[in-house]
Amino acid sequence: MAQAIARISALGQSEHMFAALLVSLAVQAASATVPPSPSDPIEADWRTIPDDELLVMTLSGNRTVVIRLATPYAPEHVANVRRLALAHWWDGTSVYRVQDNWVTQWGDETEKKPLPMGIAARPAAEYDIAAGFRAAQRMTVSDAYSGVSGITADGWAVAGSKPGVGPVADASPGWLAHCYGTVGVARDASPDTGTGSELFMPIGGSARRLDRNYTIVGRVIEGASLLSGLPRSDAPMGMYATAAERLPITSVRLASDMPAAGRPRYQYRAADNPRFAALIATRENPKPPTIGLGGADVCDVPIATRRAP
Amino acid sequence: MAQAIARISALGQSEHMFAALLVSLAVQAASATVPPSPSDPIEADWRTIPDDELLVMTLSGNRTVVIRLATPYAPEHVANVRRLALAHWWDGTSVYRVQDNWVTQWGDETEKKPLPMGIAARPAAEYDIAAGFRAAQRMTVSDAYSGVSGITADGWAVAGSKPGVGPVADASPGWLAHCYGTVGVARDASPDTGTGSELFMPIGGSARRLDRNYTIVGRVIEGASLLSGLPRSDAPMGMYATAAERLPITSVRLASDMPAAGRPRYQYRAADNPRFAALIATRENPKPPTIGLGGADVCDVPIATRRAP
Repeated sequence: MAQAIARISALGQSEHMFAALLVSLAVQAASATVPPSPSDPIEADWRTIPDDELLVMTLSGNRTVVIRLATPYAPEHVANVRRLALAHWWDGTSVYRVQDNWVTQWGDETEKKPLPMGIAARPAAEYDIAAGFRAAQRMTVSDAYSGVSGITADGWAVAGSKPGVGPVADASPGWLAHCYGTVGVARDASPDTGTGSELFMPIGGSARRLDRNYTIVGRVIEGASLLSGLPRSDAPMGMYATAAERLPITSVRLASDMPAAGRPRYQYRAADNPRFAALIATRENPKPPTIGLGGADVCDVPIATRRAP
Repeated sequence: MAQAIARISALGQSEHMFAALLVSLAVQAASATVPPSPSDPIEADWRTIPDDELLVMTLSGNRTVVIRLATPYAPEHVANVRRLALAHWWDGTSVYRVQDNWVTQWGDETEKKPLPMGIAARPAAEYDIAAGFRAAQRMTVSDAYSGVSGITADGWAVAGSKPGVGPVADASPGWLAHCYGTVGVARDASPDTGTGSELFMPIGGSARRLDRNYTIVGRVIEGASLLSGLPRSDAPMGMYATAAERLPITSVRLASDMPAAGRPRYQYRAADNPRFAALIATRENPKPPTIGLGGADVCDVPIATRRAP
């Protein structure tokens, strides 16, 4: 069995570097047993996520998915999401689409449920985020896939240059990358037709093709596997064909709308420090015999979050 | 509902371009209703996959996963896989690991099952495949993520240059890319310790970090969702903690070892033709208002397969 574990570790260790929760756990575990590494966070690196940036989605069976909202990067859409949550609009809706190697999508599959007052029906597309991508606000990632990308100080993966466009400069736009676990706004063909009522999470291989084409409003920081581990639908677009397949959504709440005593509290690992730079370096230059990609994948740099101690 | 479908289509259409089975179905459907596009295959583009390149894994519940073996790219490991299948070695083993956003892994989780005679215990690592990557054998993909990559004429996604390494030349090595659905050889830390008895399939976001570090022996061409849609394990490395969680493998057979009358027969869409070049072009330059990546993702170019008509 030792060999089996070792064999699995050889493949699985990389996952430690990816999954935020696993990372924080691994770091804690490591701290208890071995000297801290230069890439381990110090206590000051953990910053509180504001209550109004935490969206708590409770699924049938009392399983909870926690989403961090990307407030500075998609303000109009995030405002809609907050209004929908404050109106308890998602209560009784469902996870209605699971398309293999693409997305899990939730909301009101009937499209008939009226939206609450105050919802911007056609918020402007919020794709590029130049203001959120100034060098002072991010750690650079030598992205093996897209040239130069970054992790913002407040913990978001931002794609930068594309081949032929050149590296990201302060004045150039960046945009949130469609990584596993990011929460995007489903929409019609027209870019400004998504309100935020229908949301999706990439669950498969690269969804980077959606970059700059769909608005990202957040990322799942706990419970992503509850959305990625669902049975796939063979129906067109992965829509669940029957009500029995759909996973009921019990409630969606902003933490700031929950009783103070019962609110979940989370922290993210800030990227504005040399520990995070060392973490990126471990991705960009893995230890032999592992062969590196010539950089990292901006979606494969672990941005840890944890429940507040 | 129309709006819902449309909205979903806006996001979901891209998946049609990815999933091999969906692609062939979509192409057939399109052919029946609209004039063929320059990227539609002609009948001559469909080539037979040899029976000894088809691995049929039957899971509990009589669900079938079909794997195409990468014969020319990992000959020693593929030879082991064939010997294991001919010895019916996997019968009664299980899918024992499902790590969220990383891999599903199967084989003998006990590590105690003796291997058949004739298995190479330590086949050489088979990562780079220069011989398989000559320009004459592939369509170039302007890879938005890794510079220049390719699709081989016989239907495999091959990664090429890395930043700082420059574009792929005939003499430079290429390597099979760890895309969703590729089948890799699990191993210990030492590169030459995987026999092929323990196999894994990437099920989540990018696993390209495994490129050149793990040997790819094939790719799933049907039933991938049976492996990706399984419940995730929270145990270390995603190992299922109990026997009840593990998914029994009823049998694994080479099609060439099955009665001729009952053999599954598959075809792949060859890439050595202008139709496939047009298909790649649709990925590299999507129609407005969709914003392109400045290339394609070599793992996001659909390499279609279909059951033989």
